[in-house]
Amino acid sequence: MSNSIKNIIKDMTLEEKASLCSGADFWHTKAVERLGVPAIMVSDGPHGLRKQAEEADHLGINDSISAVCFPAACATAASFDVDLIREMGETIGNECQAENVGVVLGPAVNIKRSPLCGRNFEYFSEDPFLAGEMAASYINGVQSKDVGTSIKHFAVNNQEYRRMSTSAEVSERALHEIYFPAFEIAVKKSQPWTVMCSYNKINGTYASDNKYLLTDVLRDMWGFEGFVMTDWGAVDDRVQGIKAGLELEMPGPGTLNDKKIVEAVKSGALEEDKLDAAVEKILEIVYRFVDNHGKHADAVFDRDKDHDKAVRIAGECAVLLQNNGVLPIAADKKVAYIGGFAKTPRYQGGGSSHINSSKVVSALDEAIKRNRNVEFAPAFPIDADSITEKDLTDAIELARSVDVAVIFAGLPDFIESEGYDRADMKLPSAQIKLIEEIAKVQKNTVVVLHNGSPIEADWADNVGAILEMYLGGQGVGEATDKLLFGEISPSGHLAESFPCHLEDNPSYLNFPGDGRTIDYAEGVYVGYRYYDTKKMPVRWAFGHGLSYTTFKIDNLKLSGSIMTDNSEIEVSVDVNNTGDRVGKEVVQLYVSDRTGTSGRPVKELKGFKKVSLNPGETKTVSITIDSRSLAYWNSDMKGWYAPSGNYEILVGDSSDHILCSASVQNETRVLPPFKIDGATTIEELATDPRTAKAYEKMMNELAQKSGMFAAATDKENPDMMLVEMIKGMPLKSLASFGVDVDMEAVIETFQKAVGSND
Amino acid sequence: MSNSIKNIIKDMTLEEKASLCSGADFWHTKAVERLGVPAIMVSDGPHGLRKQAEEADHLGINDSISAVCFPAACATAASFDVDLIREMGETIGNECQAENVGVVLGPAVNIKRSPLCGRNFEYFSEDPFLAGEMAASYINGVQSKDVGTSIKHFAVNNQEYRRMSTSAEVSERALHEIYFPAFEIAVKKSQPWTVMCSYNKINGTYASDNKYLLTDVLRDMWGFEGFVMTDWGAVDDRVQGIKAGLELEMPGPGTLNDKKIVEAVKSGALEEDKLDAAVEKILEIVYRFVDNHGKHADAVFDRDKDHDKAVRIAGECAVLLQNNGVLPIAADKKVAYIGGFAKTPRYQGGGSSHINSSKVVSALDEAIKRNRNVEFAPAFPIDADSITEKDLTDAIELARSVDVAVIFAGLPDFIESEGYDRADMKLPSAQIKLIEEIAKVQKNTVVVLHNGSPIEADWADNVGAILEMYLGGQGVGEATDKLLFGEISPSGHLAESFPCHLEDNPSYLNFPGDGRTIDYAEGVYVGYRYYDTKKMPVRWAFGHGLSYTTFKIDNLKLSGSIMTDNSEIEVSVDVNNTGDRVGKEVVQLYVSDRTGTSGRPVKELKGFKKVSLNPGETKTVSITIDSRSLAYWNSDMKGWYAPSGNYEILVGDSSDHILCSASVQNETRVLPPFKIDGATTIEELATDPRTAKAYEKMMNELAQKSGMFAAATDKENPDMMLVEMIKGMPLKSLASFGVDVDMEAVIETFQKAVGSND
Repeated sequence: MSNSIKNIIKDMTLEEKASLCSGADFWHTKAVERLGVPAIMVSDGPHGLRKQAEEADHLGINDSISAVCFPAACATAASFDVDLIREMGETIGNECQAENVGVVLGPAVNIKRSPLCGRNFEYFSEDPFLAGEMAASYINGVQSKDVGTSIKHFAVNNQEYRRMSTSAEVSERALHEIYFPAFEIAVKKSQPWTVMCSYNKINGTYASDNKYLLTDVLRDMWGFEGFVMTDWGAVDDRVQGIKAGLELEMPGPGTLNDKKIVEAVKSGALEEDKLDAAVEKILEIVYRFVDNHGKHADAVFDRDKDHDKAVRIAGECAVLLQNNGVLPIAADKKVAYIGGFAKTPRYQGGGSSHINSSKVVSALDEAIKRNRNVEFAPAFPIDADSITEKDLTDAIELARSVDVAVIFAGLPDFIESEGYDRADMKLPSAQIKLIEEIAKVQKNTVVVLHNGSPIEADWADNVGAILEMYLGGQGVGEATDKLLFGEISPSGHLAESFPCHLEDNPSYLNFPGDGRTIDYAEGVYVGYRYYDTKKMPVRWAFGHGLSYTTFKIDNLKLSGSIMTDNSEIEVSVDVNNTGDRVGKEVVQLYVSDRTGTSGRPVKELKGFKKVSLNPGETKTVSITIDSRSLAYWNSDMKGWYAPSGNYEILVGDSSDHILCSASVQNETRVLPPFKIDGATTIEELATDPRTAKAYEKMMNELAQKSGMFAAATDKENPDMMLVEMIKGMPLKSLASFGVDVDMEAVIETFQKAVGSND
Repeated sequence: MSNSIKNIIKDMTLEEKASLCSGADFWHTKAVERLGVPAIMVSDGPHGLRKQAEEADHLGINDSISAVCFPAACATAASFDVDLIREMGETIGNECQAENVGVVLGPAVNIKRSPLCGRNFEYFSEDPFLAGEMAASYINGVQSKDVGTSIKHFAVNNQEYRRMSTSAEVSERALHEIYFPAFEIAVKKSQPWTVMCSYNKINGTYASDNKYLLTDVLRDMWGFEGFVMTDWGAVDDRVQGIKAGLELEMPGPGTLNDKKIVEAVKSGALEEDKLDAAVEKILEIVYRFVDNHGKHADAVFDRDKDHDKAVRIAGECAVLLQNNGVLPIAADKKVAYIGGFAKTPRYQGGGSSHINSSKVVSALDEAIKRNRNVEFAPAFPIDADSITEKDLTDAIELARSVDVAVIFAGLPDFIESEGYDRADMKLPSAQIKLIEEIAKVQKNTVVVLHNGSPIEADWADNVGAILEMYLGGQGVGEATDKLLFGEISPSGHLAESFPCHLEDNPSYLNFPGDGRTIDYAEGVYVGYRYYDTKKMPVRWAFGHGLSYTTFKIDNLKLSGSIMTDNSEIEVSVDVNNTGDRVGKEVVQLYVSDRTGTSGRPVKELKGFKKVSLNPGETKTVSITIDSRSLAYWNSDMKGWYAPSGNYEILVGDSSDHILCSASVQNETRVLPPFKIDGATTIEELATDPRTAKAYEKMMNELAQKSGMFAAATDKENPDMMLVEMIKGMPLKSLASFGVDVDMEAVIETFQKAVGSND
């Protein structure tokens, strides 16, 4: 295939090649009819197919075909179930084949830096490992159907405000530890056909112009083999883009920029080889779809069957945040459904991922269908922050008259959408008032939440149970029904922290920036990495999720306690269902660096597994870690580094609920570069194995020459202030304290000892 | 004088000039006997004279003359009394004249970024305005006696760990708003004779090599006229130092570096004019002292008289942190003094500021002398974290048997010193145990604290009163006696926040850095600026301090409500002593930016005044603010900028206890530079007065050409997601959305509108 593509490219004019580097319109690549080069269609929608019915408007946001809306990524991440999201990917891949769509524009894996990001509902997690594992599994699902994906938005697009122009100012370490790994894991485990670059700048350079991002990291470090396209309108300097590793500009027709490419090649500003390589990458994917499409000729978009899957998936994503026993509701109870979302659930977000749903069944519809003993009070409208005195009174009266009151609360569309960020982290004030008033008259109050990102819940202690449905897709109503009445047990765990208040969030002081730049001053301390390390209370922690049954996790075993640069360790625990219902537990493995390395969060997720257990059943769950699981990004080394020493392996069912732990000793043969110059301190020379010998020699000489050094190195009675002072003394300062040594010779000696003199 | 110095310099050899740029030894400048140029002596000790008796050791830390130890800066800052600290400065200046010391090495005004900094006890505050005002007044006091000061450590020396080599990585804004202003205020208000540069690097360049610091900022922006000396051993590249604005290397004799200067001049690497200028600055100060010394021939170092001043000053610095009424103690009560610090107070810190005190009277000594009904239990040793079972039992028994138990707690020397930082923020565990056990048997428990920086006080709610004496100088025992028994009322207020726990501190995640760099990631959010903005609870807030009487602050009046670029506004309040004792209140004025500017703390101290009131008395207190009081450092403008709009003036007796407020409208004629390029957004063009007209014209044209723009600008029913999207759209992206405009022409039009094209 690659040879024949190369031949096609040889036959192309310069203008034809340039033209292939932008789309034909909003949703198609360009064809070259003269040479029989076909076009393929791309479509929005990681959680369902948003295939444009026709070229309806300039933004291409209206009028897509009827499709099945699955739970958004905020929800699917909470499933912690890689098999489930793979199945969802397969389903969507099949739908694409049925609809002749070549690439699905997703998944979106940006990190949830702030709860305010308007597009958080499309993103998986505040944790890059979880986001990466879920993305890889989804991609493998879609691509198993010979349909491509476009993992997005690469990279550091963590807010909507000024997303098209602002510069995310992020340390190299935070890039590699927090903002890159979801992409890295997906590239390495699932090789997505395409990557979509983000609108924003990263450290001053637009993603679409950014060679470090698109070539050095994405291809050279990680081995990405597909092509990179822009987010819609993210192109900046088209010729620089080609050089940096950007193949496809979207949307099309890109007439002006195609011309610029032609001119650049003609003027010599762009090597034609670079253009050829870009075209080749695009055509490889085009043909990969086209050549395999025939295999899926019998693919059918079965909306009813897929709807049932959407219901099942929604049920696996829901997170039971708290429960005093009011849930599940027994069949004989009299129940009130209160709030607009009971009748009209909010189940997806606004913007490019918005699905024209084939069918929506609300929780109220389902309750009526199932003949549940449910009465309804609308209480508040779903599209405004208001409640009338009468609606409030009616709701209170109804709540008072029943056994259980279920409030269907959440964030309206106008608060949460692509295109703009939230102004605060609150529910609409009318809903807060409603919850508080209902809770006063009904102790069995349940709050069901429909939202794409965390909310403040100062009212939580007043209610009996809280069930987080997120934006659960078109099956959310039926799933909610099954969960409330105990037909299935909740098994989702939070993929993000719920801070007590917005001000607690680590990005609070720097979000959303000044309009030109965003200072990612919190560095790697995002989400639970921050709350845990700062010992700050949160409303609900990352990884938290309750069940209708109970579990015990214990008997932690390691396959070995020594980690080397090339070894793996298998960590196993026994999980026992100690309750009387079928249920699923999410085993979470965190690693804690105890080597004393500066700037490391107290724990980081490095493995997880979801396991289903019958009552009384016990299963052994194994998770494998390697030295990368212990490592941080060392900017001096431009790579991952895990210093030798102790690491704690922590296993629990939430980031704040560790149930067993064990120690691993890391023994690395790698040593980071050691720069010796005038700023190198006595302490550094003393503690590095490469210089320890030369250090002892120097200190003996200094003690001969200097009373200060003699006093500090006195073995019987050292002067502690001098000891501390000398530890921190750089070579350059020795002369100032009357030590007569040839500093340049000393520095050279140490440089030789470490085998470097840079 | 200046002419005659110039003449002396003309007569000097190159070698003689170079030699003057380093000290003769640890404590003296060099003389040039051939030309009759005298030397002067410098001495450590902002809170007392640490004049070296002889050249005793290599570090010059031992054996200084007997002197009076005044309260350390941690304490004097808490007085909030500029007159008091001026008087202390005058006293020390007089002592210097009596001892023929030309320059006192202080005050130290580094910002208390972390409670862990080992040298915090020598520094004033976490707030630069307070630190600057106190420093300026102290300097004016010393220098009124024709003795110089050396304000230090310039700059950003906020920890001991690796202070001699590490690089403080700080934003320009944080430098100018947090780390510079204490120096700036002192330079502008008191023109210190010398400035001492710090050991560390600032953004990669040693302070001693740093032209931005030592010339651009210190001299060109602020108008400093004296000379800069190094901290002891802080020199790096001697020739670069001369170029950067470093005049004097300390300590001497600096033989090697003197030679390097000579060689650099000979080789042309250093202009001789630069060297001449440095020598001139040094000699101006030398002669300023020498020529005026005769005026003070009758100066006497009266240790007894100055001791009494030290007692009085210590009494003004103490902060009553909490009190349930147990204080003051009535004369007829039976009292237990518990803990080693009752007998041996900790009243100063270790390191270069350590005074050989002329006299120390402990609180126990004073109680015995005054025939108070006091018994003593030593409980714990002052130099270790330990307590024996018997000592604990004895202390508990004693506490149980009395009316009031006073525990003299604090940080031992080995925890807190120049040279190393604290490992945590806790009291020794033995003391915590003691406090908890005593509190169980005696509800009238008072804790007196002797410490140089904040401690965690989880036990606070269990005790009746807490009196923070800080490191109160040699008069601390007598002052404590007067305060405990109500002869004077506490009037100090905290010059720093006491966070609940160390993890709450804004620098926690980045302190003390990785040994090579320190990331000042918290930016301007230091101390209460952080806690207030993040709405985090603290144990005791900046500005907090109780009294034995009560005050009312009200009737806030402004001399005008409009601020312009050149105007001032006088803010006045009435302060009324509503209790039945004489007392002093500290009126604090904070400013809060309400213009919507990003990245501003919710409030910042911009004025304060301490006022003494008899019972029932009312005084009107006035504080003047100007446009600088409203401004932040705008890095684009390289200057201070207060946007037009609303600012709130807040007056209270603590940062968390605002009692009255008023609005000020700022009307500036200054507009920050507006860079127009492809990244400039529609919203920026719409809202800037310079581009508003051209913007409207463009939008009308775009609405004609583009359905998207037409839909977004529809006055009846605008598409909100499009509106938000277009607001954030940069000029460079218009073409991608099918708008056929000549972008370069558009950019040029707007550039012309703002009168710039950079």
